[in-house]
Amino acid sequence: MKARQGTDYERCRAFGERIHQLRKAQRLSQEGLAELADLDRTYVGGVERGERNVALLNIWRLADALGTHPSAFFDNPALPT
Amino acid sequence: MKARQGTDYERCRAFGERIHQLRKAQRLSQEGLAELADLDRTYVGGVERGERNVALLNIWRLADALGTHPSAFFDNPALPT
Repeated sequence: MKARQGTDYERCRAFGERIHQLRKAQRLSQEGLAELADLDRTYVGGVERGERNVALLNIWRLADALGTHPSAFFDNPALPT
Repeated sequence: MKARQGTDYERCRAFGERIHQLRKAQRLSQEGLAELADLDRTYVGGVERGERNVALLNIWRLADALGTHPSAFFDNPALPT
């Protein structure tokens, strides 16, 4: 179970980092992204820190807000910011 | 809100259809997939019917179980079954 928990944490972190990268690339604030996605700013912050196990419909909302496709969030997060 | 609800439904349906297609392509039963993913069979059934707003970590579990990447679940579902 320890191994799974570690992987789970890394997966949430990697997902959050991709959101962060894509948001920064568009010079959007967390507030700006939250507004576009109709989500709370603190929720978006939690997503970016990997603290949220984001569900499908919010993944789509974030993708819409960033003008991208959900699959972009599952790419290798080790990309230039 | 009606429009969003319609889109949300379609998104859950499309996601579930992709899982269904990928499972069938591997000649796996719902029980078999559920066991591989360490999820309940009824949950997997609900996912395939588009009744579940699947969260990130379960998306990854299903991807692992199907030997694929989560981005495969967000592809165009209008593929041959």
